[in-house]
Amino acid sequence: MLGRPLANREGRASTIGVAEGVPALGLDGLSSTAYGPEAALSVLAAAGAAGLAALGPVMLVILALLAVLFASYWQTIEAYPKSGGAYTVAQDNLGVNASLLAAAALMIDYVLTAAVGISAGVGALVSAAPSLHPFTLPLCLGILVVLTLVNLRGTTDAGRLFALPTYLFIACFAIVLILGVFAAIASGGHPRPVVAPPAPPKAVEALGLWLLLRAFASGCTAMTGVEAVSNGVDAFREPRVSSAHRTLAVIVVTLGILLGGIAFLATAYGIMATDQTQPGYQSVLSQLVGAVAGRGAFYYVAIASALCILCLSANTSFVGFPRLCRMVAQDGFLPRPFAIVGRRLVYSVGILYLAVAAGLLLAAFGGITDRLIPLYAIGAFLTFTMSQAGMVMHWRKELGQRRRSRERPWFHVKLAINAVGATTTIVAVVVIVVAKFIQGGWITIVAIPCAIVLLKAIRRYYDGIDARLRDDRPLDYHRSKPPIVLVTVREWNRLTRKALTFARELSTDVTAVHLAALEGPDVKGDERRLRERWAEAVEKPARAHHAKPPRLEFLSAPYRRIHAPFLKLIEELEKRNPDRTIAVLIPELVKHRWWEHLLSARRATRLRSAVLEYGGPHVVVINVPWYVTPPPSIEEAMTQEEAREPTHARNVLGFRRREAPHTQRR
Amino acid sequence: MLGRPLANREGRASTIGVAEGVPALGLDGLSSTAYGPEAALSVLAAAGAAGLAALGPVMLVILALLAVLFASYWQTIEAYPKSGGAYTVAQDNLGVNASLLAAAALMIDYVLTAAVGISAGVGALVSAAPSLHPFTLPLCLGILVVLTLVNLRGTTDAGRLFALPTYLFIACFAIVLILGVFAAIASGGHPRPVVAPPAPPKAVEALGLWLLLRAFASGCTAMTGVEAVSNGVDAFREPRVSSAHRTLAVIVVTLGILLGGIAFLATAYGIMATDQTQPGYQSVLSQLVGAVAGRGAFYYVAIASALCILCLSANTSFVGFPRLCRMVAQDGFLPRPFAIVGRRLVYSVGILYLAVAAGLLLAAFGGITDRLIPLYAIGAFLTFTMSQAGMVMHWRKELGQRRRSRERPWFHVKLAINAVGATTTIVAVVVIVVAKFIQGGWITIVAIPCAIVLLKAIRRYYDGIDARLRDDRPLDYHRSKPPIVLVTVREWNRLTRKALTFARELSTDVTAVHLAALEGPDVKGDERRLRERWAEAVEKPARAHHAKPPRLEFLSAPYRRIHAPFLKLIEELEKRNPDRTIAVLIPELVKHRWWEHLLSARRATRLRSAVLEYGGPHVVVINVPWYVTPPPSIEEAMTQEEAREPTHARNVLGFRRREAPHTQRR
Repeated sequence: MLGRPLANREGRASTIGVAEGVPALGLDGLSSTAYGPEAALSVLAAAGAAGLAALGPVMLVILALLAVLFASYWQTIEAYPKSGGAYTVAQDNLGVNASLLAAAALMIDYVLTAAVGISAGVGALVSAAPSLHPFTLPLCLGILVVLTLVNLRGTTDAGRLFALPTYLFIACFAIVLILGVFAAIASGGHPRPVVAPPAPPKAVEALGLWLLLRAFASGCTAMTGVEAVSNGVDAFREPRVSSAHRTLAVIVVTLGILLGGIAFLATAYGIMATDQTQPGYQSVLSQLVGAVAGRGAFYYVAIASALCILCLSANTSFVGFPRLCRMVAQDGFLPRPFAIVGRRLVYSVGILYLAVAAGLLLAAFGGITDRLIPLYAIGAFLTFTMSQAGMVMHWRKELGQRRRSRERPWFHVKLAINAVGATTTIVAVVVIVVAKFIQGGWITIVAIPCAIVLLKAIRRYYDGIDARLRDDRPLDYHRSKPPIVLVTVREWNRLTRKALTFARELSTDVTAVHLAALEGPDVKGDERRLRERWAEAVEKPARAHHAKPPRLEFLSAPYRRIHAPFLKLIEELEKRNPDRTIAVLIPELVKHRWWEHLLSARRATRLRSAVLEYGGPHVVVINVPWYVTPPPSIEEAMTQEEAREPTHARNVLGFRRREAPHTQRR
Repeated sequence: MLGRPLANREGRASTIGVAEGVPALGLDGLSSTAYGPEAALSVLAAAGAAGLAALGPVMLVILALLAVLFASYWQTIEAYPKSGGAYTVAQDNLGVNASLLAAAALMIDYVLTAAVGISAGVGALVSAAPSLHPFTLPLCLGILVVLTLVNLRGTTDAGRLFALPTYLFIACFAIVLILGVFAAIASGGHPRPVVAPPAPPKAVEALGLWLLLRAFASGCTAMTGVEAVSNGVDAFREPRVSSAHRTLAVIVVTLGILLGGIAFLATAYGIMATDQTQPGYQSVLSQLVGAVAGRGAFYYVAIASALCILCLSANTSFVGFPRLCRMVAQDGFLPRPFAIVGRRLVYSVGILYLAVAAGLLLAAFGGITDRLIPLYAIGAFLTFTMSQAGMVMHWRKELGQRRRSRERPWFHVKLAINAVGATTTIVAVVVIVVAKFIQGGWITIVAIPCAIVLLKAIRRYYDGIDARLRDDRPLDYHRSKPPIVLVTVREWNRLTRKALTFARELSTDVTAVHLAALEGPDVKGDERRLRERWAEAVEKPARAHHAKPPRLEFLSAPYRRIHAPFLKLIEELEKRNPDRTIAVLIPELVKHRWWEHLLSARRATRLRSAVLEYGGPHVVVINVPWYVTPPPSIEEAMTQEEAREPTHARNVLGFRRREAPHTQRR
């Protein structure tokens, strides 16, 4: 289902231009228009008509902030033409703790982007097809599963695939805005809606500063995703920076026009947010299109394009989150599996982790966008702040290096722009935190420090291991004593003979250990039979060869667990032979079919685990396999692609030169 | 929760007398009174009042059959004073196939005994407390869980614990019968009920032979459990056979009186079965006690005792099923784990298996006794038949051995009795199969041959392994070539040094293999660093010691999976060195805490599995552990009891005599 595995060499670094860059990196930002204004309106709804009138001013503040972010990220792209993600910028300029704060905020932001994108997309769908309302959560989870599978498969051609719905969305809403603005002007500011939006709710709260702050905080979600271009500069075709700049400009200008237009038209047509939890929910975009253009074919095309880009905006997270996790894991702050490329050349662990986290969030909040929004903007704006603050430090360093340069005034301007960005975004963070704390913002506030503590603990664990493993001593070539070999034996059979033969290759000090009374109190041990066979098959030929036969010893396991007496024996041997290795040789039947495991008591596996775990540093465990059925060809252990790969083994061990394999190559 | 582990020596063989034997082995039989007559009545209910009148004759036939079974098992106890289970008797006298048929029938019977006992017990509870009716299935599953836990813990004192409810049940229903019969006689056969039973349903079917046959088939469930004494003869105190005989007599006579009495009173009071699936359900016993003695304190004591013995009768399965499975597993027809005594000296696997099977049955049939009954009697009566037929063959053999003995006439009588038993029970089986086929009997009919096929397949699998493992050749003492050792290496560290040191103990032909490009295409290999450290730490000291240093080779894994290129290397080496062992040495970090596994890519474990599974017969895998934290004391790997156990290791390997451990003991 996920396609054939891909080889390392197949990871091609295709580059993109502006036309592909807008859909690939602008989806998250552009799709915010679908929930940002709505989020502000659903707060303002409490003040009724007065609230609606306040949407314009609130949106003006948001657009001003957007302009500041635009200027700031313009500079970040210039300064970090490879990858200017908040994590990298903070790490470069603010140190480890700040970068971890950025990483934690970004991770939470990514998870929420996925959850909000999907839930808002389903919101658009439910607006168009109200009969689907009861299935909001299952629809959300279904879309999440599809996105996860698509991303596990790898989305190398995603950019092109995403272009159609993105440009369709922009075109549709450009038409809506033009028609709507024209109608508004023609009617003197009071256009008649084609399909009337639901009656605005009664005011239940006076319009005050607190309400305005909360509306601003919710509306800020409209700006999320602006940072995407700065994260992906290295994806652009040369001249890289200029392509990225133009892409950023297209995205931000389009976003600004859409946001402003939506705010203007919502005010003009008297469109308010409705409650997504209630049947009859109509998203703001749906009301807007209905009011301006009616509910004809155009309506469905526009809503379908909105649904598409919302779901695809969730895809931004599936691209960004695993890459971020990989960077963090390479720095040792996340478990190593996050840094491992899966069979389709994607970071599968990160994708799965994101899917599970977003799924849990969707399930916990019932797939309702409005409930997720309070958690959302905090992470995004913290990321903005960290990135901008990092840039301020970056320009300070640059200034320090160019004491006499003529460009100093320019760098002062750049520093000032990023400082304004940092200041405004931190103010926004504070506003958002204060305004949304009770509605769910506290979850993000609690989650971020927890994530940082976890990241640091993981790094500390890896550092501890590395410190203990570090080794400056050379290999010791002094001859050491041969190991003491213990062989577990149940009865005399081919498996036993094979194990003993190999044991004698290792050492002359071989002891076979039979563990008795494992099956319970009533079972007569087959001790005598084993002793007789031993005398016949082991001791008699030893006399003929004048060799020392392996000893046979019996251990009793009164609690029917093999490993307790065995570990005691090992401990005793270690005490008496502190300078020797104890090799525990465990003959094992190899099982190839799953049901064979049901038919076995799995003693070999359990004994191996126990000896490895508790045996101590002088023990090694040797597994001697015995194949019940002939071992399958090694091709079965690999994919067709791996089997077709030329045998690298031919190039090593001097095979090519037909030397004896134990002579050295160089 | 399950208590401390028990040592083999703690498995005490306590013996019982008649007074303990009746509760311990009679529960299954006596509790059948609670559902047997009811099962017959619920069939007869279709014929209304005429059906009720037919209960007496049907019950008389059942009592006659019970008498035959009594005589037959009396003889089985005499002939098999150790254990006369149907499996043993059939195996001794009828061969493997018959014994497997008996085993399959018995297993199904045991599972159904557990399910029916619990569902009938809950039926009694629901009759007394109708508000619990909606919770029938959860109550059933709850009781099943409690029984499972109690049995996993081991029920050494079960016999004594079971005595109280058993004798209470007998006493209560003796009083009911005496009062009822007295009232019936005093009133001239038409006693007035204290609490009137529900009005009998309208007749929907004429009373015909088919209905009578079905009623008989259902009523036969009243006889299940009679075989228990013959299974457990070895539990009795000496004189064993006479104790067992007296116990069997007490059980069968009590059962007969109860069955006859219930049939008589049900007819006299006009008591009919009601539908357990409907609210307002009243079990026949509940109606009977209500009609005879009213719904006072006595009613609740009687119903409580019925509930207890029904649930405890399910316990009979928990004792019998695991022991049967163990016998079958020892003969190789069931997976070996069934024969392994668990930490509490019980056959835990069998207990769990029974619990799961009974739970699935209860869930599938909603915990309704009436739906389970059609499946039930078939297994039980097949078991009876197999046992009786086996006894017939037994007496024929005995007769063959005593051609001139004076006792021959006696043996002819014995043979005749068992032949009558075998004939009547096989007739009953046919009747039951025909009568219950559609209602669910087919499930048992299908399940039994499936089970036999499965049992034989398991035996064939084990036989196949044994045949391949059997070995008559002695150990080969000719000196063989030392193994080719491959060591997996990631970087130079203590783990690598330890592994290489041990590798050099094994052979001079050591190759370190570094697998590159595992993390994905973008990761720069640290090949050069490793080569430099290798020259420094391995090759330089080798020159100083004039030793041959281990080689270092690089393998590339283009699909990022370690095992494919590694297995190809092994295959190549095997082709070139068909006479040598290839030892794959895998250094491994030992993880003691569960979360450490999350932090690791588990490459060592995965490589070990792949090499063991596909490496072929010339490969052995050596695990060299390295402890991140100091290895915990071996006491942590064992229970307190195991740690307190005297160290047997002191007795082996000549420790006691203070010999050097590698000199031989004898």
